Amino acid sequence: MNSQDLFKNIQKKRSFLCVGLDTDLNKIPEYLLSREDPIFEFNKRIVEATAPFAIAYKPNLAFYEFQGAQGWISLQKTVKFIRMNYPDIFLIADAKRGDIGNTSKMYAKAFFQHFGFDAITLSPYMGQDTVTPFLAFDGKWVVMLGLTSNESAAELQMLPLADGKRLFERVIETSMQWGHENNMMYVVGATKAQMLADVRKIVPHHFLLIPGVGEQGGSLEEVVEFGVNSQCGLIVNSSRGIIYADHTQRFAEVAAAKAEDLQMQMAGHLKSKGCI
Amino acid sequence: MNSQDLFKNIQKKRSFLCVGLDTDLNKIPEYLLSREDPIFEFNKRIVEATAPFAIAYKPNLAFYEFQGAQGWISLQKTVKFIRMNYPDIFLIADAKRGDIGNTSKMYAKAFFQHFGFDAITLSPYMGQDTVTPFLAFDGKWVVMLGLTSNESAAELQMLPLADGKRLFERVIETSMQWGHENNMMYVVGATKAQMLADVRKIVPHHFLLIPGVGEQGGSLEEVVEFGVNSQCGLIVNSSRGIIYADHTQRFAEVAAAKAEDLQMQMAGHLKSKGCI
Repeated sequence: MNSQDLFKNIQKKRSFLCVGLDTDLNKIPEYLLSREDPIFEFNKRIVEATAPFAIAYKPNLAFYEFQGAQGWISLQKTVKFIRMNYPDIFLIADAKRGDIGNTSKMYAKAFFQHFGFDAITLSPYMGQDTVTPFLAFDGKWVVMLGLTSNESAAELQMLPLADGKRLFERVIETSMQWGHENNMMYVVGATKAQMLADVRKIVPHHFLLIPGVGEQGGSLEEVVEFGVNSQCGLIVNSSRGIIYADHTQRFAEVAAAKAEDLQMQMAGHLKSKGCI
Repeated sequence: MNSQDLFKNIQKKRSFLCVGLDTDLNKIPEYLLSREDPIFEFNKRIVEATAPFAIAYKPNLAFYEFQGAQGWISLQKTVKFIRMNYPDIFLIADAKRGDIGNTSKMYAKAFFQHFGFDAITLSPYMGQDTVTPFLAFDGKWVVMLGLTSNESAAELQMLPLADGKRLFERVIETSMQWGHENNMMYVVGATKAQMLADVRKIVPHHFLLIPGVGEQGGSLEEVVEFGVNSQCGLIVNSSRGIIYADHTQRFAEVAAAKAEDLQMQMAGHLKSKGCI
């Protein structure tokens, strides 16, 4: 999938919503726990309910690894289910990996070939040769950590460098040379919306993956104000605010309503910004 | 396990060798492929053969994830086998994770509780709140990326900051405040041995995990010269140079010989530095 395809899906669905599948056995409705594969069961219903309003899903690997081998089976079933039933959906493995070349090659094969994800989140700290193996896969994407949404993000990411730039700016400037607008995007936390303007100066045309809207306190209005470009250029993620909005048998219905609410706000923004 | 226990094991075995279990179905002896779980079978024999000469094992998660759910089963069996038969062994999950607090908590539970690892490698880019959840586990360790052994490592890690320091120095200075000498160590690549002296100025007493000796070109002599402290303070990893030294039915025997060769060199260094 290239950035044109992504933009087409955004226009079609009038949405740039990504639903984060941070699926936790302690948080899903209790009645599902008796099912054979509660995590897959939960994901399947969430996806069926929210797919009309979302262009992407982002399973967070930690939640699956936590369940050991069974977690990987649940993840595999989830990815396969989405792939078969919603071929236009953009699938992001939120894995935040990053390792030396021969190891990165294994991760790339695992996530792009074995699972069939479209994209994977990576940490930049180890440099280019840890990223290149992922970029060798045609039509696949690297989502590089730029400026994250957590409280401690500033500790290192905002460090001033000798040349006057901040570390996150240099990370983006350097890593954008490793790929191009059709295989790299950046994570920029919604909690730092005003800094989106600084990021946009460096990468005006790249897609940005924005976590932190909702539970983490980020504002969709600000994200759009500072981050949107002529082809939208944004994928905004919401996890807990959608998938755990309700803990009863009605969870999927409530998740759909939450997703639709965001989708309607997004449609308004896309319209006012001339993207649809 | 605390640093005293680690040092005691180093003294007992006269070794600070960690064997990296980067177990790859394409590289293990072909005759093992017909076994029910070739990866576990390979690991078991490597561990049985090399355990007299090693104080630590470090499975690289990428190689297990590559096999999907089956890979996690093989990993789980490997960890359990080592735990049951070699209780003194220090077990490092080479996972290079790092994510927001609630996600880190899941990773910490997965690796420390579910698997029973002693330590996990983490990337520093997202800051303190991504590390704290791991440090909450008594007796467990965070192994933070400091200066890695890959070619592109310098791209970001050596960036000069406004205060004159290099990024990796700031990463170590900042992160050492998050824990202490009994729950944090640092990855410093053997290919940058002379910079070990700079690292030692910042963390004279912490343990350092040194990859890159052997296949990646690092020298054990230089590592000891610049990195050793009064309690050894070093765990030196070798993966490919030991586990893939031979591809026949004699692979375990040859791995043992390679490990013993390193152990004997290490014993010499420990003696000449007054650690044993």
